[in-house]
Amino acid sequence: MTYAAPIADMRFALESCADLWRLRERYPELDADLLTAILEGAGALAAETLAPLNRSGDRAGVTLEGDVVRAAPGFREAYEAFKAGGWQGLAADPAYGGQGLPRAAALAVMETMHAANMSLALLPMLTLGAIEAIDQHGAPDQKALYLEKLVSGEWTGTMNLTEPQAGSDLGVLTTKAVPQADGSYAITGQKIFITWGEHDLAPNIIHLVLARIEGAPAGSKGISLFIVPKFRYEDGSRNAVRCIGVEEKMGIHASPTCTMAYEGARGWLIGEENRGLAAMFTMMNAARLNVGMEGVGVAEAAYQKALAYARERKQGGRPIIEHPDVKRMLMTMRAKIQAGRAICYACAVAADSGDTAMEDLLTPIAKAWCTDLGVEVSSLGVQVHGGMGFVEEGGAAQFYRDARIAPIYEGTNGIQAIDLYGRKLLGDRGEAMRRLIGEAKAAAAGLGGAAGERLAAAAATLGAATDYMLSAPREDALAGAAAYLALAGDVAGGALIAQGLARTANSEQRALLDYYTQTVLARADARLAEIKIGAVALAAIA
Amino acid sequence: MTYAAPIADMRFALESCADLWRLRERYPELDADLLTAILEGAGALAAETLAPLNRSGDRAGVTLEGDVVRAAPGFREAYEAFKAGGWQGLAADPAYGGQGLPRAAALAVMETMHAANMSLALLPMLTLGAIEAIDQHGAPDQKALYLEKLVSGEWTGTMNLTEPQAGSDLGVLTTKAVPQADGSYAITGQKIFITWGEHDLAPNIIHLVLARIEGAPAGSKGISLFIVPKFRYEDGSRNAVRCIGVEEKMGIHASPTCTMAYEGARGWLIGEENRGLAAMFTMMNAARLNVGMEGVGVAEAAYQKALAYARERKQGGRPIIEHPDVKRMLMTMRAKIQAGRAICYACAVAADSGDTAMEDLLTPIAKAWCTDLGVEVSSLGVQVHGGMGFVEEGGAAQFYRDARIAPIYEGTNGIQAIDLYGRKLLGDRGEAMRRLIGEAKAAAAGLGGAAGERLAAAAATLGAATDYMLSAPREDALAGAAAYLALAGDVAGGALIAQGLARTANSEQRALLDYYTQTVLARADARLAEIKIGAVALAAIA
Repeated sequence: MTYAAPIADMRFALESCADLWRLRERYPELDADLLTAILEGAGALAAETLAPLNRSGDRAGVTLEGDVVRAAPGFREAYEAFKAGGWQGLAADPAYGGQGLPRAAALAVMETMHAANMSLALLPMLTLGAIEAIDQHGAPDQKALYLEKLVSGEWTGTMNLTEPQAGSDLGVLTTKAVPQADGSYAITGQKIFITWGEHDLAPNIIHLVLARIEGAPAGSKGISLFIVPKFRYEDGSRNAVRCIGVEEKMGIHASPTCTMAYEGARGWLIGEENRGLAAMFTMMNAARLNVGMEGVGVAEAAYQKALAYARERKQGGRPIIEHPDVKRMLMTMRAKIQAGRAICYACAVAADSGDTAMEDLLTPIAKAWCTDLGVEVSSLGVQVHGGMGFVEEGGAAQFYRDARIAPIYEGTNGIQAIDLYGRKLLGDRGEAMRRLIGEAKAAAAGLGGAAGERLAAAAATLGAATDYMLSAPREDALAGAAAYLALAGDVAGGALIAQGLARTANSEQRALLDYYTQTVLARADARLAEIKIGAVALAAIA
Repeated sequence: MTYAAPIADMRFALESCADLWRLRERYPELDADLLTAILEGAGALAAETLAPLNRSGDRAGVTLEGDVVRAAPGFREAYEAFKAGGWQGLAADPAYGGQGLPRAAALAVMETMHAANMSLALLPMLTLGAIEAIDQHGAPDQKALYLEKLVSGEWTGTMNLTEPQAGSDLGVLTTKAVPQADGSYAITGQKIFITWGEHDLAPNIIHLVLARIEGAPAGSKGISLFIVPKFRYEDGSRNAVRCIGVEEKMGIHASPTCTMAYEGARGWLIGEENRGLAAMFTMMNAARLNVGMEGVGVAEAAYQKALAYARERKQGGRPIIEHPDVKRMLMTMRAKIQAGRAICYACAVAADSGDTAMEDLLTPIAKAWCTDLGVEVSSLGVQVHGGMGFVEEGGAAQFYRDARIAPIYEGTNGIQAIDLYGRKLLGDRGEAMRRLIGEAKAAAAGLGGAAGERLAAAAATLGAATDYMLSAPREDALAGAAAYLALAGDVAGGALIAQGLARTANSEQRALLDYYTQTVLARADARLAEIKIGAVALAAIA
């Protein structure tokens, strides 16, 4: 058995929990039939074309020959199929060949790709970021030059942020941009950890590169964003950007992680001078949500594999799924996956509906909570497999290895916690979070019973935690920021499932939520204790 | 930087928490000077000889040529050094060349080996199991034949339990033993997942093999244990046991995991006919404690690497260790490691002092709690490293991959939870557990303050959980068994550190305990909710 898109769970999370049809007026062309067709079509592509390459891609990895990076066998054909299906442009502007559908629908499509083949799915995910950046910050001629080819998937995109000395702190990056007579810039420097930075699946690669214009102010206020195409559009000449190395990683072996050398490469400023970080955040926010979805996707794949194994594998004369502890692991996996899925979809629906405050609030939660979930669930998947889980042939190990990157890239989960506290919570003095808490309490009241009480209590605890975070000294709040994010995710996930049940009765989802409130939400008080730990308690380590 | 044995933490855990000197009368030859010499000597071997081979062994793995398994480069010399130091026989009977020291001292030595090179440390760990089985169940002539060579480390030992269809349920194994005229047995069958089942580091390998004597009753009451040497002692002839495959695994690449084919191999019954499982449990219990120690060891190695990285790596102009969230991760790592270390050492001291009830109770807790800790801590180690954590070159990834096997082998952690409930708790109607709870409450009273209150509350919660487990229907208790084990480990670890502080004041250990009570022990009520989840809540998944 291999991956099958969990259409029923996805639809419940998308339509009932995330309230997709709130978007009906903004996106009149999307109806239930089209949604079904999209999810089933994506699911089929994921299951039939991408998933069969997941293990072989892991084994083959990528090959660096000179400065040419060769993708794993079969990846070209799979990417061609993805492209041919028009999947890249699902949510893109019809003016450039997109279908203009909600991002929530595109995100659900990406869930199936991430689940089936995390390495390959990173390619369209990065392209999506480039499309958004150019669409929102590009000049009309830039849009005209690049968008159509990116939206169709003919060309792919990258994000070039990190440098050897500049990871989480982009303010110290040193890649420099020297203005040229023709209005372009000569870009020189080295970028590391560039996902799909070089490959042979597309005739051109559009790099979005952070660099410092000569004479710009120091720090993060002197950084600009540039478009650096591998081949220049005007004359097809090869630009001075090369891959000089690929990382040997623990997972996502089939996704090339490149070191890129820019040696006077010709680039064009996108957006305003010295406002590059702001433009980059456009890409980053979309990417963060997508990485959260990746956590859910890889968790779903791990869950399906573990479930199938537990049904097949017999010990003591009966399938191991009959053992309470195996059931417990599978329930934990499924309940958390569904909560994570609902959070990601809700974040996308918030974006689609123009509810920027909720989109901003949910983005770091989706990224961190759902990628931690990916690690936890894929670890449980290994455990369900017993000895076969540790053997590569079993397949469970790959999910565990692959999932581990997601809490790290696109801003570590520690950075997400700081973002949730510093930008989001302090940014609006807790207004969006209080709205979320209010909705959770209303959902709890609607749910009723013991589960409703547990959700209400957890929501109240999140309220108390929010008061604390808003009033605590900064260093104390930062010491509790990761636990705060975790609690916010716990509550948001439970509240969204409860909201879904209010819209659509579903006994299976109800059983998952009951379990979730008895396990995940039972930790709320402990989370609050961790939130309030304070900076002094951590002093011993330094 | 590489691994350095944390002598101060080890001594605090061993002498103050686990109360090593309670053994003074039984082991008069051990004093503080000798203990120091042992720990420093083992630490030096681990740091200087084993640790430098950890990464190279991971890359090289093992090689199967025909039925010959070649260890990774350098492993022969490292094993020779281990052997030459007399480390294998530290706790063995002086009659066979051992040093007759407490198992607790030998376990502490093994901690440093596990931390430095988990793959290589498995070799003496398995030999230790063979020594214990032959020592406790072998006939005098068997002891005379095998023990000296095993105790010196000249020969190594294995445990052959698992078969393709018989993993956690050994009752269904089919390897058969046919009695021969000379009193030996012809063993035929296939065994899988045999750690160091074949290798080129020793001239002989002594396999301890579970098999079914022709005509024996079905199920677990028809299983016997046999000694099957690779080379027969009498004439040096090669026995009919061969390695026919090695697994491709996610981690511990330098430890060969062999499929062994027995084709009428000559074996000798050890212990009584059809009582093989009981004899096997002798090996298994020692191995389970050692696997728990392995979890602590790999966690310590991951912690040291993360700490060093956090001190060196600068972001935003300051070392990342100054960031509260990085501090939080490191504190979590260190506090849990110390609790796990104390649990393992206390289990060994209980064994050494003849406190079988406490040894039996702590064994599954040490195995499961400390191996879950290994996974959690090594994952945090990856996270502290950021992008470098996912790159194999960084070294953090290997700990994460290696650590993942420990919750699986020597009985999955789910099996440990069943053991704690079914054999240990029901076995004495909770007597040993109530003793542990009483000691935890006394330690809490001695500790005082807010930390003492938190420990007392967690101990009381464990008391309530124990009452529940003893009275709940079996299926309900099994549904909560993993959470019950987790809570027992949480409390035992905290209580042991508190006991250590009562014996020896130590401000650093005190700060770790405070943190531990505010984070780990804050979860006690949530654990209780999970313990009480009941079988019905899990029904949805099947």
